[in-house]
Amino acid sequence: MTDLGVHSETGRLREVIVHRPDLSLRRLTPDNCHDLLFDDVIWVKRARQEHDVLVDTLRERGVKVHLFGELLGETLADETARQWLLERRIGPDMVGYDMGPQLRDWLGQMPAAELADRLIGGITRAELPFAPDGLFGQTLLGQDFVLPPLPNQLFTRDSSCWIYGSVSVGPMFWPARRPETANAEAIYRFHPRFRDAGIPFVTPDNPGMHCSLEGGDVMPIGGGVVLVGMGERSTPQAVGSLARNLFATGQASHVIAALMPRDRSFMHLDTVFTLCDHDLATMYPPVVDRIRPFSIRPGEGERSVTVTEEKRPFVEVVAEAMGLKKLRIVATGGDGYEAEREQWDDGNNVVAVEPGVVIGYDRNVYTNTLLRRAGVEVITIESAELSRGRGGGHCMTCPIARDPV
Amino acid sequence: MTDLGVHSETGRLREVIVHRPDLSLRRLTPDNCHDLLFDDVIWVKRARQEHDVLVDTLRERGVKVHLFGELLGETLADETARQWLLERRIGPDMVGYDMGPQLRDWLGQMPAAELADRLIGGITRAELPFAPDGLFGQTLLGQDFVLPPLPNQLFTRDSSCWIYGSVSVGPMFWPARRPETANAEAIYRFHPRFRDAGIPFVTPDNPGMHCSLEGGDVMPIGGGVVLVGMGERSTPQAVGSLARNLFATGQASHVIAALMPRDRSFMHLDTVFTLCDHDLATMYPPVVDRIRPFSIRPGEGERSVTVTEEKRPFVEVVAEAMGLKKLRIVATGGDGYEAEREQWDDGNNVVAVEPGVVIGYDRNVYTNTLLRRAGVEVITIESAELSRGRGGGHCMTCPIARDPV
Amino acid sequence: MTDLGVHSETGRLREVIVHRPDLSLRRLTPDNCHDLLFDDVIWVKRARQEHDVLVDTLRERGVKVHLFGELLGETLADETARQWLLERRIGPDMVGYDMGPQLRDWLGQMPAAELADRLIGGITRAELPFAPDGLFGQTLLGQDFVLPPLPNQLFTRDSSCWIYGSVSVGPMFWPARRPETANAEAIYRFHPRFRDAGIPFVTPDNPGMHCSLEGGDVMPIGGGVVLVGMGERSTPQAVGSLARNLFATGQASHVIAALMPRDRSFMHLDTVFTLCDHDLATMYPPVVDRIRPFSIRPGEGERSVTVTEEKRPFVEVVAEAMGLKKLRIVATGGDGYEAEREQWDDGNNVVAVEPGVVIGYDRNVYTNTLLRRAGVEVITIESAELSRGRGGGHCMTCPIARDPV
Amino acid sequence: MTDLGVHSETGRLREVIVHRPDLSLRRLTPDNCHDLLFDDVIWVKRARQEHDVLVDTLRERGVKVHLFGELLGETLADETARQWLLERRIGPDMVGYDMGPQLRDWLGQMPAAELADRLIGGITRAELPFAPDGLFGQTLLGQDFVLPPLPNQLFTRDSSCWIYGSVSVGPMFWPARRPETANAEAIYRFHPRFRDAGIPFVTPDNPGMHCSLEGGDVMPIGGGVVLVGMGERSTPQAVGSLARNLFATGQASHVIAALMPRDRSFMHLDTVFTLCDHDLATMYPPVVDRIRPFSIRPGEGERSVTVTEEKRPFVEVVAEAMGLKKLRIVATGGDGYEAEREQWDDGNNVVAVEPGVVIGYDRNVYTNTLLRRAGVEVITIESAELSRGRGGGHCMTCPIARDPV
Repeated sequence: MTDLGVHSETGRLREVIVHRPDLSLRRLTPDNCHDLLFDDVIWVKRARQEHDVLVDTLRERGVKVHLFGELLGETLADETARQWLLERRIGPDMVGYDMGPQLRDWLGQMPAAELADRLIGGITRAELPFAPDGLFGQTLLGQDFVLPPLPNQLFTRDSSCWIYGSVSVGPMFWPARRPETANAEAIYRFHPRFRDAGIPFVTPDNPGMHCSLEGGDVMPIGGGVVLVGMGERSTPQAVGSLARNLFATGQASHVIAALMPRDRSFMHLDTVFTLCDHDLATMYPPVVDRIRPFSIRPGEGERSVTVTEEKRPFVEVVAEAMGLKKLRIVATGGDGYEAEREQWDDGNNVVAVEPGVVIGYDRNVYTNTLLRRAGVEVITIESAELSRGRGGGHCMTCPIARDPV
Repeated sequence: MTDLGVHSETGRLREVIVHRPDLSLRRLTPDNCHDLLFDDVIWVKRARQEHDVLVDTLRERGVKVHLFGELLGETLADETARQWLLERRIGPDMVGYDMGPQLRDWLGQMPAAELADRLIGGITRAELPFAPDGLFGQTLLGQDFVLPPLPNQLFTRDSSCWIYGSVSVGPMFWPARRPETANAEAIYRFHPRFRDAGIPFVTPDNPGMHCSLEGGDVMPIGGGVVLVGMGERSTPQAVGSLARNLFATGQASHVIAALMPRDRSFMHLDTVFTLCDHDLATMYPPVVDRIRPFSIRPGEGERSVTVTEEKRPFVEVVAEAMGLKKLRIVATGGDGYEAEREQWDDGNNVVAVEPGVVIGYDRNVYTNTLLRRAGVEVITIESAELSRGRGGGHCMTCPIARDPV
Repeated sequence: MTDLGVHSETGRLREVIVHRPDLSLRRLTPDNCHDLLFDDVIWVKRARQEHDVLVDTLRERGVKVHLFGELLGETLADETARQWLLERRIGPDMVGYDMGPQLRDWLGQMPAAELADRLIGGITRAELPFAPDGLFGQTLLGQDFVLPPLPNQLFTRDSSCWIYGSVSVGPMFWPARRPETANAEAIYRFHPRFRDAGIPFVTPDNPGMHCSLEGGDVMPIGGGVVLVGMGERSTPQAVGSLARNLFATGQASHVIAALMPRDRSFMHLDTVFTLCDHDLATMYPPVVDRIRPFSIRPGEGERSVTVTEEKRPFVEVVAEAMGLKKLRIVATGGDGYEAEREQWDDGNNVVAVEPGVVIGYDRNVYTNTLLRRAGVEVITIESAELSRGRGGGHCMTCPIARDPV
Repeated sequence: MTDLGVHSETGRLREVIVHRPDLSLRRLTPDNCHDLLFDDVIWVKRARQEHDVLVDTLRERGVKVHLFGELLGETLADETARQWLLERRIGPDMVGYDMGPQLRDWLGQMPAAELADRLIGGITRAELPFAPDGLFGQTLLGQDFVLPPLPNQLFTRDSSCWIYGSVSVGPMFWPARRPETANAEAIYRFHPRFRDAGIPFVTPDNPGMHCSLEGGDVMPIGGGVVLVGMGERSTPQAVGSLARNLFATGQASHVIAALMPRDRSFMHLDTVFTLCDHDLATMYPPVVDRIRPFSIRPGEGERSVTVTEEKRPFVEVVAEAMGLKKLRIVATGGDGYEAEREQWDDGNNVVAVEPGVVIGYDRNVYTNTLLRRAGVEVITIESAELSRGRGGGHCMTCPIARDPV
C-alpha cells in the first residue's frame, strides 16, 4: 500500500517535488525570454539561494523534499528509462534524422546526473562534442539551441499534479513547455520511489491546442472533490476528460470546474485563489467574483458524466463542497494599487504545509498581514528573483503526499 | 497513368486548386483576427469578386480550376470520407466527449456541400440546433466557436503542395491552421479526381512544433530539383524528412534548402522569390541576398542523405540547378519605400500560367513594370481585399498539374 | 458678414475642406507605418481615385469642395504666410541650427504648390539639393526624413474643426500629428478665403500631453450646443478650455462632454456616433451605451463655467439638447461579428450633405441597409484603400460652411 | 567661487544627488507600469533599503550625498520657489482651470516636505481633501491620478546633468518624464546650495519631439571634451544646441556625438559604455562597435560650430580626446548569453567614486570579475529591486561636484 497521494490542499504536507533553479534559467536573455515564456531574465545564483531557503523551510516543517533534477538523474540511471525518455525528447521532430543517432550516442553514455541537467537545461550547438550531421545540425551556429532549455520546469506544480491517489501529467498549453511533461512522466514511470506504486494516470486524453491542463489549475480539496480552473491554460475539453478519468479510477466523485472571466487572462486558478486552512482561502476578488462554476459528477452510463452550471458564487459552491457553512476569505491586501501589485507578485499563491500554516513571499506585506490577522501562520521566504518567474510557493511545489485535512 | 503532377514552377499550368472566400472570413473581427492569423478584417463580398476574377483569368488561360470548397463537398458525399474527416475534425480534443456524438449526428446528416462550408467556415454556439452536452458545450455562449473558422484555407498553396508526382500535406506551423490540412488530405484520399491516382504522400513525418512545412516554401523547379525555404514556417527538421521521402519515392534527386535570415521573419520563400519564366525570377534582394543555401542529395545507404552547405549565393545555386548560366532577376521595383511596400503587397508573389506569363496584383505597379520591361507578360488582378490577407497569386493557388518547362 | 460657419451636423453642407491622398502616403512602409499612426500601407493611386469619387459626390450634391493641398499652396504664395509657416515647421527643434538656413533658402524659393506638397509629404535626405550642414544633417542617410511625412493630413476633420462661427485648431494628441495643425492654421490665417473673415479661434489654450482636442470628437449639433467626446485623443482639460473659449466668444452656450469608457480606447466620438438626420443618429451601442455625459454651461463670473454630470443616458441628453422627444437610433448592422467589423470599417462614421442624406463606405452593407430602411439616403463610395486609414467620410471632411438644420 | 562642477567621469566624486525610492513607485501596477515607462512593478520597501546601501556606500567613500526629495522639500520652503514650481506643475494643461485654484490652495499651505513627496509621488482623486470642480475634476474616480506619479525621478542622472561648471536640465524624450525636469530645475534655481552659484544653464533650446536630451547620454570626460550618445532619447537636434551652449559659455571645446545603431534602440549611452578609470572603460561591444562618432567644435562665427564625421572607431576617438594612446576596454563578461544578460542588468552602467573604484550591481558577476582582473575595485550593491527599473549606479546618480581626473 502506497503512502503517495494528495488528499487535500491544506492537510499536513508529507512529500513534495521542487526544482532547483539551474542552467535553463541561465540561458534566458532579454531577446529569447518571451519565447521561453518569461517576462524578464533573472539572476540565477540568487534565485537558487532563495529556492534553497524554500527547501529548508519545507524540511524544517517536516516535509520530505525531492529535487526534480535529482529524481530525474536517478531515473536516468536506469537504461530503460533513459531510452524511454531519449526517444521522446530527441526524436526526429526535434533534431532531424542524422543528428539523432549522434546525440543518442553521446547522451546515451553520459553520466545520469549530467544527462538530467542537459535534458532540463538544454543543449547548444557549441556544446556538442561532434560535428552534427543532417540539415538541422548543419544550419546551427554556436549559440543556437539543439534542445531548448526548459526554464519553467521550476514550476513543478504545472507539469504534473497529484489528485488523491492518482496523477495527471499534462498536456501543457504551450508547446514550448511540453518536454517538461516528458521529464516528469519518466520519473513517475521509472524512478524507484514511484515505479512500483501502481499509480493510476488520469491525464486527459487527446492532448492538443484545445485540450490542455496544467496543475496550477487543479486542487484536490478533500472528500473526493476537485477544483479545476479554466482560463488561458486549462480547457473545458481537458477538464471533461480529466473528470471522466478520475471517476473511472474512483479517485474523485465531484469536479468543480471554475470558468474564469475571458476579458483578462489569468494563468492558473492558483494565481487568484489558494486555500490556507481547512476553512480559509486567500483570493483576488476582481477575478474570483466573476468565476462561473460548473459541477461535474459521474453519470449513469459507463464513463458518462453530468454537468450542471451552479447558480451560486464560486466560493459558496466550494464551501458547500467542503462541508462548510462558509469559507473564510482573505482578499489580497492594501489599497487598489497594492492589491493589484500583490496579486501580480503571487500574494494569493501560497502553499500550506499544514492547516493554517502557509509559505508565501516576503514582498506581499499587505496580504500576509491580513492572513496573519485571520490566524494563519505565514512563513515568508525571499523573493527577489523567484517572484520574477511569476509563480509563488504554490506554483513551485508539486505535493506527492499530503494528508486529508 | 495519371496526368496529375507539378513538374516546374513556370511550365504550362493545367490544373489548380483555389479556395473562394467564404464564411470563415466573415467571422474575422478586429478582436479575433490576430488569433486567426490575419492582420485586418476584409470585406468578404469584394474579396469574393476579386477572387472570381482570379479564377476567370486562370480559366481564360486554359487552366482547369477546382474550387476547394466544391472538392470538399464532393468528397464528403462519400460516407467513408465523411467519417474519416469528422473523426479528425471533431474529436474529443476539440469538442469534448458529450458534444461529439451530438455534433456527429447533426453533421453526419447534413448535405455534403453545407458540411463542407461549416468545416471551413466554423460553427458557433448559436448555430447549433441542439443544446450541447458536456462541459465544453455548456460553457459556450452565443458567438463562441464550437469549431473555429479557417480563414487561411484561402491560401491553398500552404496546406498542401505538389512536388512532381507526389504531394505533401502539412504539417503546418500554427496549430490554428492544422485543420486546413485535414480538409485537404480528405480530398486527396477520397475525391474521385484523386483517390485512384495512387499519389505518393511525401509529407514530412513527425509533425510538431519544431517540424513543420508549408507549401509557400516549396518549389519544384524541374529536373528533379526542389527549392525549399526555411524561415518562420518551415523547419530544417521537416525539410530533411521531406527530402528523404522525395528521394525514397523517386520524386526528386536534389533539394536546395534556403535558410532565410533570422533577424526578420518572412512567412514563406514565395513572399520574396518566385519564378516567372524558364530563366527569370522576381525577388526582394534585402532578404534573398542573405539566404544561406544547402544542398541535400541522396546518400549511399537506404534513406540516407548528404547535406552540403553551398558556398555561392542562392541565385547562383538555383541557376546552376536549372542548367542556366545565369538566372535573370527582376528585383522589387520603385525606390526604397516602394520596394518595401511592394514586397509587403506580394509584388514578388506571382504565379506563372506558362513560361513568361504571370498573374500579379494590380497594385504592384513598379514591380509589374519592371517585369514587363524584362519581357514577362503580367496579367493583373484587383487586390483591394485579397492583398490584405497578405498573400498573392502564388499563395492562393495550389497547382496540381503543371508541365515541365 | 461671412458665410463661413458650421451650424449643425446635418444641415445643408455648403463648403468643405478635404485632402487628396498624396506623397505622404507613399512614404508609408510596413516598418514605419506604425510610428506614423497607420495600421497598414495603402495603395495611393487607388486611394486617390477613391477620394476623387468622394469629392465628385460632394460636388454633385452642391457642396463647394476645397482641396487642402491647393489651399495650402495658395496660402504659401503669400510671403508672410510662407515665413510664418516655415518658422513653425522648420525650427531648430526639427532640423537643428545649421540646416535651417539652407532649408529656408531652398524652400523659400520653391514654387508655392511644390512647397505645399513637401510640407505635407515630407522631405528625405536624398531629395535635398545641397549637402546639409550641422549635426542633424550630417547624421542623415539617403531615405531618412528631414521632415517626416504627414499621412494623417488626409483626415482634415481632426486637425481643425469649425464650431458655429469659430474654429479650433488642435492641439492634437500625438506629437507626430501636430505639424498638420500648423499647416491648417496657416490657411486660416493667411488664405484669401479666410484671412479677412475675422474668425475667432477657440482652440484650447495650454496644449500638452494632458490637454489635446481633435475635431473627430467635436460636433456642433445646433442651437448653441456642442457635443465633445473624451477618449484617447481629447481630454477633459482641453474640453474645459474649449468650452470657456466658446462661451467667451458667444459661439455656444452648452457643451455636452461625452466621457467614453476607459477599458477600450476609441479614437474619436465620430467613430461610434454620427448624426444622419435632424432626429436620427447611427451608433455603436457597446460603446455609446457606456458613455458618461457631462453638461458644461456658462457660470456667473467671467470665464466661469458650471459642470454637471448628467444622470440620463447620453442619447437622451443629446435628444433633449436638440429639442427632440427622442433621437431615432440606427445601430451598427449585422450579427455580432458584422457589427464589430462595420464599426471598425467606419460604418458609424458617415457625413451628412443635407438632412437625411449621408455619404458612407460601400463596404458597410448591413449598417447602410438599416439606415436606408430608416429613410436615410446613403450614397456609397468605394473604400478599398481609404478605409484602411481607419477613417470614414466624417473623418475626411472638415465642413467650413453648413446650414442650421 | 563655487565648488560645484563635474570635471570628469572618474575623478574623485565630491557631491551627488540621488533619489530615494518613494510613493511614486508604489503607484505602479502591472496595468499602468508600461505607461509610466517601467517594465515591471517593484517592491518599494526593499528597493528603498537597497538604495540606502548605495547612499551609505557613497558616503563611506567620502561623497556628500544629497537626497532629491529633501532638496526639493527645502526648496519648496521658499515661497517664490513654491509658486514657480506649482505654476509649472499644476497649470490648466494638467488639471483644467477650476481645480487649479483648489489645488493651489491646498498645496500652497502644505508643509514643504509633504508637498515635495506629492510632486514626485503623484496625487489621486481619493486623496483630495475637497470635491474638485471643473470638467477634469468631475470626471475623476477614486484611484485616478490628478497628478501622475514620477517613478523615474529615481534616475537623477537623466533629468539633469552637470557638464563641467554648467548644467543641462532636459528636455526629456517622453512627455511623461518632463515634470521630473521641472522639479530638478526648481532645485537649481531656488535651493540655497545652488541659487547663488551662478550656474550657467546649457539646456538645449527648442524642446520638442525631435529635440530631447537626457543625462544618461552625457559624459564630461575631462579636458573640455564631452561625449554625448544619440539613440532613442537624445537627438542630434538637441546635441547640436547643447554644443553651441557649451561653447558659448566656455564650458567645453569639443563634443563627441555618438550615433548609436538604429536597428536596436538603447536608452542611453551609459547603458553600453561607462568609464571606470582614467584609461579604462567597460562596454558592450555589439552596440559600441557600431557607433558612428561625430566631432563638434566651435566654428569661426558667433555661435557657429563645425561638425566632422570621424573615420575611426568610437573608442579610438575617445582615447585620443582623452590624450591616451589606447583606452583599455573591459567588455561585458560571460558567454554570449551572460553578456547579453549583464548588459541588460546594467553591468556596463557603473559609477566611479574615484579613478579605478566603481559601484556596480552584485548580479553582474562576470563583468565585475573582469573589471577586477583589470585592476578596478568594484564595490557591489544589492540589486534585486533597483535593477528592475533598468538603470544602474550611473543612472541613479547625478554628480554635482567631481574632480578632474
